[in-house]
Amino acid sequence: MSQQFEHVALIGLGLIASSISHAMRRAGMDARITGYARSSTTRGKARKLGLCDKVYDSLIDTVRGADLVILAVPVGAMGAVAKEIAPFLKEGAVITDVGSVKRSVIEAVGPKLPKTVHFVPGHPLAGTEKSGPDAGFASLFDNRWCLLTPEEGTDRKAVTKLRKYWEALGANVDEMEPDHHDLVLMVTSHAPHLIAYTMVGVADDLKRVTDTEVINYSAAGFRDFTRIAASDPTMWRDVFLNNKDASLEILGRFTEELFALQRAIRIGDGDFLFDYFTRTRAVRRSIIEAGQDTDETNFGRGTTGTDT
Amino acid sequence: MSQQFEHVALIGLGLIASSISHAMRRAGMDARITGYARSSTTRGKARKLGLCDKVYDSLIDTVRGADLVILAVPVGAMGAVAKEIAPFLKEGAVITDVGSVKRSVIEAVGPKLPKTVHFVPGHPLAGTEKSGPDAGFASLFDNRWCLLTPEEGTDRKAVTKLRKYWEALGANVDEMEPDHHDLVLMVTSHAPHLIAYTMVGVADDLKRVTDTEVINYSAAGFRDFTRIAASDPTMWRDVFLNNKDASLEILGRFTEELFALQRAIRIGDGDFLFDYFTRTRAVRRSIIEAGQDTDETNFGRGTTGTDT
Repeated sequence: MSQQFEHVALIGLGLIASSISHAMRRAGMDARITGYARSSTTRGKARKLGLCDKVYDSLIDTVRGADLVILAVPVGAMGAVAKEIAPFLKEGAVITDVGSVKRSVIEAVGPKLPKTVHFVPGHPLAGTEKSGPDAGFASLFDNRWCLLTPEEGTDRKAVTKLRKYWEALGANVDEMEPDHHDLVLMVTSHAPHLIAYTMVGVADDLKRVTDTEVINYSAAGFRDFTRIAASDPTMWRDVFLNNKDASLEILGRFTEELFALQRAIRIGDGDFLFDYFTRTRAVRRSIIEAGQDTDETNFGRGTTGTDT
Repeated sequence: MSQQFEHVALIGLGLIASSISHAMRRAGMDARITGYARSSTTRGKARKLGLCDKVYDSLIDTVRGADLVILAVPVGAMGAVAKEIAPFLKEGAVITDVGSVKRSVIEAVGPKLPKTVHFVPGHPLAGTEKSGPDAGFASLFDNRWCLLTPEEGTDRKAVTKLRKYWEALGANVDEMEPDHHDLVLMVTSHAPHLIAYTMVGVADDLKRVTDTEVINYSAAGFRDFTRIAASDPTMWRDVFLNNKDASLEILGRFTEELFALQRAIRIGDGDFLFDYFTRTRAVRRSIIEAGQDTDETNFGRGTTGTDT
């Protein structure tokens, strides 16, 4: 196992940073790991779990000397963190992040960093509906995609080092243009989450159906939605606030399609419904054929839940 | 194990009827099982699987002498089946169904049956995204709810016999008023399915995101949706056509809530989003506390997928 970095600084010690630490240990990396969390409770948990060689309550102490700095805080907090650490970053260090949106992170973080470091934004498509350092585990990234969105002109050696690092943590790595990333993820992850949140909200609101009924007769469709809708509220708030254009585009299209189906129900157009439901069934088959899910009962569920 | 019925006729030999047969065998019932399917392919598969003592291509032969007749065809086909079998039903027989909506089934089936039989509509909240006799298995109903919706004046002995029968197949049984059933299930199952179908349709339509990207980067939120949206198109078409009022009510509420969230994204109201996402997270906790799902990785997924 080649070692890409000698000192990795984890900023934010939630589910993702914790899993990075576990996966680094599993991969046999002997890099020094320093960590920072704003909350003393989180720092205490991280210390108890032994996630880092040293947990600091100072951003500056955490990044000092690090040759890889991973920003694993909510998307809305990244700009402020970047500003604070910028003067203390080691020359030649690689700076990356794990945010679920990329354009707004690039805009918030990029201009604050010195020219002497390499900023390579990233997004591991992995997560569960749980949060906090206790929720992390070593296999979170196994066979999941990690998308890197470097801008043109980024040092290719830095990109390659980061790619190898993520591969060592178990992930498949691909590169993508940041705006395109934000649109693709809106379709495959963000909009489904918002929709799940909405449906769970409707159920919670509807006083003609009691809570007990919603809970007792919650069939698998709805149970899946509640699991998705249990994800970290801060993270998701920031995702939608920071991916507004793609949100509004995809929600607009979603509403159009939903209205078409609703109209078919109203006028009793069974052929329209049947054709629609047949077409979506084929999408499922493609996903299974592409190896991204299987017909098996437990694929992708063993330890991973909702992706971001 | 008490035996409630000596001869059970299964009309329609798909996932549910197949699972009923498997569960009856597992429960040690030595009732005669006769079966009917419209398609010769399905009849052939059912024979090969040994689901029935005898598979007929005639409805009349199938129900002759049966003291329990289970209508397990799509909701839209139940009225025609009831009309054809009515003159040949044994006196005192219990007639039930497994349809996902109850009011329209009661209206389609009830008036066609003779006064000499007992009609007790039912709905086992169980299923997977697969269909056909091959997809059935004995544990499908284990710890799942089966809701019975008898009308006032229905013979209580018939209801009790059917309740015990479903309990022997592994289910928990509850009774509910039919219209209320249709509203509750719209919230907890039908609307989530329609929404999942819609989102998968949007992804399939969006030419700016390639199929390969949708498939490769399909994160867990979307993957869950594709699984839900892979369910039987005929069944779902009939559910929505036959539960129109509840569909339009719940979709109307859903759209209102979605617009409120969309507006919050547009105007950047992070507090609104955060509060909404926090509230829905609590619903998840209630479902786990009620024992309808667990924090464990595989609850409700081992063999069951989408409920109806």
